[in-house]
Amino acid sequence: MRHVTVTTDFGVPAGVMKGVIWKIAPEAQIADITWEIKPQNVLEAALILDRQVFFFPDDSVHIVVVDPGVGTTRRPLAARIGSQYCVAPDNGVLSTLLIRAERENWPVEFVHTNKPEYWLPEISEIFHGRDIFSPVGAHLAAGVPLEQLGDVIDDPVRIDIPMPTRTAEGVEGEIALIYEYFGNIITNIRRADVGDLGDLDVTLCGTTIEGLVRTFGERPPGTLVALFDECDYLYVSVVNGSAAARLNPKVGDRVVVTPR
Amino acid sequence: MRHVTVTTDFGVPAGVMKGVIWKIAPEAQIADITWEIKPQNVLEAALILDRQVFFFPDDSVHIVVVDPGVGTTRRPLAARIGSQYCVAPDNGVLSTLLIRAERENWPVEFVHTNKPEYWLPEISEIFHGRDIFSPVGAHLAAGVPLEQLGDVIDDPVRIDIPMPTRTAEGVEGEIALIYEYFGNIITNIRRADVGDLGDLDVTLCGTTIEGLVRTFGERPPGTLVALFDECDYLYVSVVNGSAAARLNPKVGDRVVVTPR
Amino acid sequence: MRHVTVTTDFGVPAGVMKGVIWKIAPEAQIADITWEIKPQNVLEAALILDRQVFFFPDDSVHIVVVDPGVGTTRRPLAARIGSQYCVAPDNGVLSTLLIRAERENWPVEFVHTNKPEYWLPEISEIFHGRDIFSPVGAHLAAGVPLEQLGDVIDDPVRIDIPMPTRTAEGVEGEIALIYEYFGNIITNIRRADVGDLGDLDVTLCGTTIEGLVRTFGERPPGTLVALFDECDYLYVSVVNGSAAARLNPKVGDRVVVTPR
Repeated sequence: MRHVTVTTDFGVPAGVMKGVIWKIAPEAQIADITWEIKPQNVLEAALILDRQVFFFPDDSVHIVVVDPGVGTTRRPLAARIGSQYCVAPDNGVLSTLLIRAERENWPVEFVHTNKPEYWLPEISEIFHGRDIFSPVGAHLAAGVPLEQLGDVIDDPVRIDIPMPTRTAEGVEGEIALIYEYFGNIITNIRRADVGDLGDLDVTLCGTTIEGLVRTFGERPPGTLVALFDECDYLYVSVVNGSAAARLNPKVGDRVVVTPR
Repeated sequence: MRHVTVTTDFGVPAGVMKGVIWKIAPEAQIADITWEIKPQNVLEAALILDRQVFFFPDDSVHIVVVDPGVGTTRRPLAARIGSQYCVAPDNGVLSTLLIRAERENWPVEFVHTNKPEYWLPEISEIFHGRDIFSPVGAHLAAGVPLEQLGDVIDDPVRIDIPMPTRTAEGVEGEIALIYEYFGNIITNIRRADVGDLGDLDVTLCGTTIEGLVRTFGERPPGTLVALFDECDYLYVSVVNGSAAARLNPKVGDRVVVTPR
Repeated sequence: MRHVTVTTDFGVPAGVMKGVIWKIAPEAQIADITWEIKPQNVLEAALILDRQVFFFPDDSVHIVVVDPGVGTTRRPLAARIGSQYCVAPDNGVLSTLLIRAERENWPVEFVHTNKPEYWLPEISEIFHGRDIFSPVGAHLAAGVPLEQLGDVIDDPVRIDIPMPTRTAEGVEGEIALIYEYFGNIITNIRRADVGDLGDLDVTLCGTTIEGLVRTFGERPPGTLVALFDECDYLYVSVVNGSAAARLNPKVGDRVVVTPR
């Protein structure tokens, strides 16, 4: 028994992928990470994955289907990254996991999953999530060794993950993720990026928040607050409200952090 | 193998919580009850839980993360309520289950889960759902006895659950839940509250519905009807349509029931 | 252990159905196909089911709750259709699966699940998904033979599934499904319906798309393209965009296909 996750931009859960997985690995336990990546937004998927996959048991298999290049020559990949397996198109969607593996000195191995005996018998041109990534992931979950699924490669596509920069005044970063439902705005600035600056003022979307809090409960409802999230990224929230509704943010908007 | 459910106000399924649970209890089977509780709406979560948890197998574990007080001094709790285990913040979100347990004379036991050896090794200030409630729930699913998770307490926070009142003319209650997608409006008036009144007129949102039906199919499409739902609450629906769209209801709006 | 799927029009995942299923079949593995069928849209559910259920392992159980006739005299059914079991109201929602079974010469057997010993002990008038379909499906998953669940019948309700027609100029069909999130428009015209016509022009919603592509990647972002989907239906998409937003389509709109 192995654990499998599915991350897509379909807008609906990919039931059919679970059918394909279970046909090959009947005991696999499957969880959705999300099906609401914005269509074909490879960067958003990369950021979400890094926040979740390393909390899963060792040897879990994470299938990622954000795949604007489906049907072209882009390669289908499988990978071992630290304790986890991933199956994804070769479009950089695993870049955040690679950055973490490099930082943590974890082993990484990539395979071009070019052996059709591990795919569905018939392959569509537009849904390799169902026809290639799910069966390949299921074979990993069923215990097939990574190297058996295709040729080892060392040149997976990487995308640019925006990083904050140190300035004379403090740190400049940007908005990385916006959780519309809960209303939180996540920046790309980590605690380690500002750890030596003491208390901070945070400016974004034309507003400055003076000083950080440790948790929501320190301020009255309706207050705009800045704090660190569960993955140690700086984020902005409204206590019992929505920072997204208040500030009208866009992914990529500049965030400036200065010492108080 | 035990069954685990997850109920949150995140707006997206909490994939990472499933990873944390499976790392501790690899065979746990996990279902989402919902991730669409309105943000920080403890009452709504309490009402939804009571409609679902007692249909699960004995010894299932229900993890609830609607947690405006995260990071403050509010306690994390685990509980045995009748046949079920629950893990939740101490904010009253289990109040409906307690009311039911008292009505049914079921055993109830609460524990303040204050033993960090049953948490994740590192605890964030803002996501105890991932860092405390999921591991504690997983340990319950893996068979750790409730009392081992912390100190027994007898003073869990309770919130006021609005109850209907008997009047000279009939019964007065309020709108408890609105299912936007399907368009149904659920009141807090149970069959037992009006059982002796015979057929009923139901007035809400400026409209009176004359007489109850037993099921939708008794009236033509487009008709506004009142009937009892699968949990024996009075509710209002439009046959093949949306009562929510027709009546523009708000949770808490008054509902008046009188004999025909 | 058997695999179970759930397809509903509830707008939220049916957690409580999973509880009912697990109480009877604790080892069942359960996936949602979708909970976002448009309310009471039996045809949409039928079309979605046919795109998914035959990808599941043999003997999987598919529970379908799109049930405008709940509480009336409409029968609850269970069926064996090819390799799969289905449990659904007798309203035609399995019609697409029957068409496929006839085309493929698969065995089909229907049962009127009229034995209350396989239902929940108490039955509501409005949620047979919880009270009848889930327990019946769970008993199938637990290994109870189909014929034991009720009387064999040979007259399940069938609905009209719109089929394309051959004309002097080419083929006329209609829009079958619209995926709002991703923006794709699926027609009811299959590859087999136009296989002999060579390259095609596709006209819908006042626009003509000249020539088919094999996959998105052949055209620049923003281009409206027509191609075959993973189930061999003709569909219309905007590369890295939304055809639904561009064309404002409605299900049932006419689609005309002519040779280039």
